[in-house]
Amino acid sequence: MRRGGADGTVVPGAAPETVSTTGEFGLIARITARLDSGAACLLGPGDDAALVSAADGRVVAATDVLVDGRHFRRDWSSAADVGHRAAAANMADIAAMGAVPTALLVTLCAPSDLPVAWAEGLADGLAAEAAKVGAGVVGGDVSGSPTLTVSVTALGDLAGRPPVRRAGARVGDVVALAGRTGHAAAGLTVLSRGFRTPKLLVSAYRRPEVPYGAGPAAARAGATAMIDVSDGLLADLGHVATASGVGVDLRRDAFPVPGQLRDAAQALGVDPYTWLLGGGEDHALAATFPADAALPDGWRAVGAVTPTAGQVTVDGRPFTGPAGWDHFR
Amino acid sequence: MRRGGADGTVVPGAAPETVSTTGEFGLIARITARLDSGAACLLGPGDDAALVSAADGRVVAATDVLVDGRHFRRDWSSAADVGHRAAAANMADIAAMGAVPTALLVTLCAPSDLPVAWAEGLADGLAAEAAKVGAGVVGGDVSGSPTLTVSVTALGDLAGRPPVRRAGARVGDVVALAGRTGHAAAGLTVLSRGFRTPKLLVSAYRRPEVPYGAGPAAARAGATAMIDVSDGLLADLGHVATASGVGVDLRRDAFPVPGQLRDAAQALGVDPYTWLLGGGEDHALAATFPADAALPDGWRAVGAVTPTAGQVTVDGRPFTGPAGWDHFR
Repeated sequence: MRRGGADGTVVPGAAPETVSTTGEFGLIARITARLDSGAACLLGPGDDAALVSAADGRVVAATDVLVDGRHFRRDWSSAADVGHRAAAANMADIAAMGAVPTALLVTLCAPSDLPVAWAEGLADGLAAEAAKVGAGVVGGDVSGSPTLTVSVTALGDLAGRPPVRRAGARVGDVVALAGRTGHAAAGLTVLSRGFRTPKLLVSAYRRPEVPYGAGPAAARAGATAMIDVSDGLLADLGHVATASGVGVDLRRDAFPVPGQLRDAAQALGVDPYTWLLGGGEDHALAATFPADAALPDGWRAVGAVTPTAGQVTVDGRPFTGPAGWDHFR
Repeated sequence: MRRGGADGTVVPGAAPETVSTTGEFGLIARITARLDSGAACLLGPGDDAALVSAADGRVVAATDVLVDGRHFRRDWSSAADVGHRAAAANMADIAAMGAVPTALLVTLCAPSDLPVAWAEGLADGLAAEAAKVGAGVVGGDVSGSPTLTVSVTALGDLAGRPPVRRAGARVGDVVALAGRTGHAAAGLTVLSRGFRTPKLLVSAYRRPEVPYGAGPAAARAGATAMIDVSDGLLADLGHVATASGVGVDLRRDAFPVPGQLRDAAQALGVDPYTWLLGGGEDHALAATFPADAALPDGWRAVGAVTPTAGQVTVDGRPFTGPAGWDHFR
């Protein structure tokens, strides 16, 4: 097989270096060289296991997997984009409990022809996203597989606070939102129709902007329930409603349609509210607060908790667009 | 599609229920119904993240992935076997730091035709293996994928002790082993040649018997370095030797060949020492102890730490059989 130059430069016409040429331990070394393990890491990659600080005697933990061709496409997202999104999806789950992410563990299942540069780009994206909250990658595993798959486990710190669960919403609470909805779904639609712009939407899909700090802020402000918006706002508020034995009613006028979203919706023949209310993967945070609570910075009221158990409505009526996402259907 | 009876019984000739018929949330419900979350779990499956006790203010964490056709074959291992092995591989890494496993997080990537019964069997195996140490499954994720893949993250508790790393072995230390080696490799060879017996060896491959308690016991007894034997004893002691800047010399007579292993080796034309010294996946623990330390129950001396940095020898000479396993080669 043709290879790159001995000094690491790419020889014109040479085949890219793949994970089959580095082997398992070589690949691990190449990946870990690009990672930082974060402030909470007491012992990082290179041993049988990592050791992470859990200062209040508890650790929050969530795991999420991205599968090539299902959660991402290599022609739509760069390796770094996938790293950003894999880290973001998991750290948003940590934030949705009211916690600060501290550490990530990552498994990469890679076909033997995967360029090493792709794995390195993935590591760069994971590291950069984790660095936004001072977290890092403390451990992982690599394996060959016919299907490129990235699985991440995130750990987090509640700093002594109780976790904010899905089950605490009470009738009369305010429903509030931190972060964007609909942009990632719009970006995905744009890409699936063969376009690469508008950049705002495509970027929102590739690298969601998660309001990590809004999770702990909501916990400190007395949020009664919270969830990461990953299946779509209506579907995820449905999970809160079911867990809490209440209903949720959203105000449509709390969701003004941004100009670029409106333009893209018109061009593609889509109702923009299917994106705003039904689209997932922006990883916004949705929460309920007591009616008299002052919403922290970054949160805005979008509806109210109602008595109708398990039901989510918009202006008092069922929403008829697609409400969420099921990974097997 | 033909389905089972409404009471859950299997209708003769009916196609098995698959993950595409339950959907994502149905599958999660079916799996979590079979799991126990363990004594350290403060908040289990069903929210954005789990919450696990980390009593001494630190948490040990390791992750490991099993890929269909590479780490297991569905015609060689039952779903429960795969669950046992996935949990064991991860919990052995926790034990190798000197810690007690407390919790598992699991991601299942499943082709749409995977029978739900397979996912349920996997859950049963994970739960049963975790229960051996009082741990449980506290969270997870499921996704569709062309490649059946099980990724596990294990958490653990050091109870205030420092972690036992790979890097602490000192010249003159005793090298000791807890648990079996070679049996899983022999079982895998037996299966790969089309046999299903001897049961001792095949079972060792399907459900490794990990000496979980020997990890914390070694830490309490002053072990200077420790590792989980998953790549093969020589390869894994090579990791210890490299990390510690020392060598390791094993005594061949410390590895008597068990009768069934010898018989299988003869029948299959294999040198039994390639299994005993080079075979991985029994998940024994190997450690180094000060020369004057009393080895705890379950540990036996098998060699000594030497000055030759990074070199692993048997009776003073290089071992010429296959020494380990690389997942990309």
